[in-house]
Amino acid sequence: MKKEVAIGIDIGGTNTVIGVVDREGNLLAEGHTPTLTNTDIKNYLEVLTAKINETVFEIKEEIEVKGIGVGAPSSNYYTGEIVGASNLGWGDVVPFVQLLREYYDYPAIILTNDANSAAVGELMYGGAKGMKNMIMLTLGTGVGSGIIVNGELVLGHDGFAGELGHVIMDTNGRECGCGRKGCLETYASATGICRTVSELIATSKIPSELRKVPSGNFTSKMIFDAAEKGDKLALEAFEITGKMLGEAIANFVAFSSPEAVFLFGGLALAGDYIFKPTKKYMEENMCFLYSNKVKLLPSKLDGAKIAVLGASAVVWKELEN
Amino acid sequence: MKKEVAIGIDIGGTNTVIGVVDREGNLLAEGHTPTLTNTDIKNYLEVLTAKINETVFEIKEEIEVKGIGVGAPSSNYYTGEIVGASNLGWGDVVPFVQLLREYYDYPAIILTNDANSAAVGELMYGGAKGMKNMIMLTLGTGVGSGIIVNGELVLGHDGFAGELGHVIMDTNGRECGCGRKGCLETYASATGICRTVSELIATSKIPSELRKVPSGNFTSKMIFDAAEKGDKLALEAFEITGKMLGEAIANFVAFSSPEAVFLFGGLALAGDYIFKPTKKYMEENMCFLYSNKVKLLPSKLDGAKIAVLGASAVVWKELEN
Repeated sequence: MKKEVAIGIDIGGTNTVIGVVDREGNLLAEGHTPTLTNTDIKNYLEVLTAKINETVFEIKEEIEVKGIGVGAPSSNYYTGEIVGASNLGWGDVVPFVQLLREYYDYPAIILTNDANSAAVGELMYGGAKGMKNMIMLTLGTGVGSGIIVNGELVLGHDGFAGELGHVIMDTNGRECGCGRKGCLETYASATGICRTVSELIATSKIPSELRKVPSGNFTSKMIFDAAEKGDKLALEAFEITGKMLGEAIANFVAFSSPEAVFLFGGLALAGDYIFKPTKKYMEENMCFLYSNKVKLLPSKLDGAKIAVLGASAVVWKELEN
Repeated sequence: MKKEVAIGIDIGGTNTVIGVVDREGNLLAEGHTPTLTNTDIKNYLEVLTAKINETVFEIKEEIEVKGIGVGAPSSNYYTGEIVGASNLGWGDVVPFVQLLREYYDYPAIILTNDANSAAVGELMYGGAKGMKNMIMLTLGTGVGSGIIVNGELVLGHDGFAGELGHVIMDTNGRECGCGRKGCLETYASATGICRTVSELIATSKIPSELRKVPSGNFTSKMIFDAAEKGDKLALEAFEITGKMLGEAIANFVAFSSPEAVFLFGGLALAGDYIFKPTKKYMEENMCFLYSNKVKLLPSKLDGAKIAVLGASAVVWKELEN
């Protein structure tokens, strides 16, 4: 009997990763292709589908493809459209699923945003296995989120639920790419902690090796490395970032009372430097009903594969319903 | 054929209301009894069950009771316990459903908090009919909430989800009964707007007839009456309250992207005085993805009956699953 598989596709700003994944989350084949941006979407689809076919080809005798799950920024699960993803440059509204259906007629062809697919991946194959209520926060360039309630992805009435990076923490706070001020992602992302370091350089007298680096060159990895060497300013930056993130999570908990909150992405790789202050401020700011009940955990999935695993997992979720 | 009904019970701090409700939300019989507080719970249950039996008695030939739904503060749907409801004075943990099962063996005996039952009532019989995603905010002495996602009540992993009154708006803000500072309910409840009036009396020079009233006597109705007469301080208090509430709702929307947010309770009765500023600040603070998509609506259910209707509605929801 042929093995049932789903194809997971992760569309990043630079690269696209394709994975052929079975129901147990095993990656049977993998392919990569550059994400062609600022072009007619049809050009990209030609390249993408050729690469999909090539990736599947080697094992095509052994498998039965049940669907394709695509994770991409600004994606709408209900409509299958990518909306307002200016960095991809394919236009304001791209009917991605409809276009992909011109190439394939699998039972499920699904588009969802990358944080949602990461949440489903964690739920099906990672540390959230068996949970019914959890929140995944992806701390990368921005802050994304995928929320699971009663075992289901929270999509909202319009497919755009779960934008916790755009919860406002301070109405007079930092300018955000979304046009507003003080969004969580201006503080608690890999980019946010770089801004915090710049702010500390300006406002404090804490000595730091980071003062020698042009602020435009900061990376969260660099701040982590400085913290590892005991750099006080870097440590303070993690403390401030964890405070903001912990306060935010305490409020998220009052919404859906999850069993666990998972952190994933560049900033989460800093381990205790980010987890310890986040946990502390989360507990300090949490309503007593939830005290010491909600786990704060790192993603258990391989960072390089979570997006593809998650995108494929969404196919199985869809076929269940 | 006998009509299938559910008994809805609303346990308030002073009174308990009992209603016999059919699947369409028609109230067929109604009873009232004082809520006996600071006593052995068994004394109260004797009185309550006698009143339930009396209420059902008149129509008992026509009906078939399918269950009892109880709405009470600090209630846990999963465990059937009332936890830490100090104003009731029945002890820290009251196994309410278990105790009620000693009197009745209906297919469903359910306990849930009053805001959750209001949400389910609105969903089944009120303005949220047909919606799959909505949030109910009850603006009374405190701020309660009931959240519907994918057509289901959000209960969380422990049954305590949906405490949006205890989202922190300002970590250095007003003292809250929960022991923390700056919770939404210290601003956006009937009590909260009274505190805002007291604050405006202290900090502003705005003339007001409310300056003649001892602050301990303030009620949200009194502030509404003053606003009706054009009292500038009362109007400013509604503006400030709506600002806080609108900012909070903008963040809630980023979580679950509901089709509508419903306001219910004492403060919601102020109509445009509270709805207009709330709507304004909600839109101003909302991520562009949700702009002008989320309705802000008053509850469509009779305020005196929503708790009982909602509690009975939870029985049907439970029997569906």
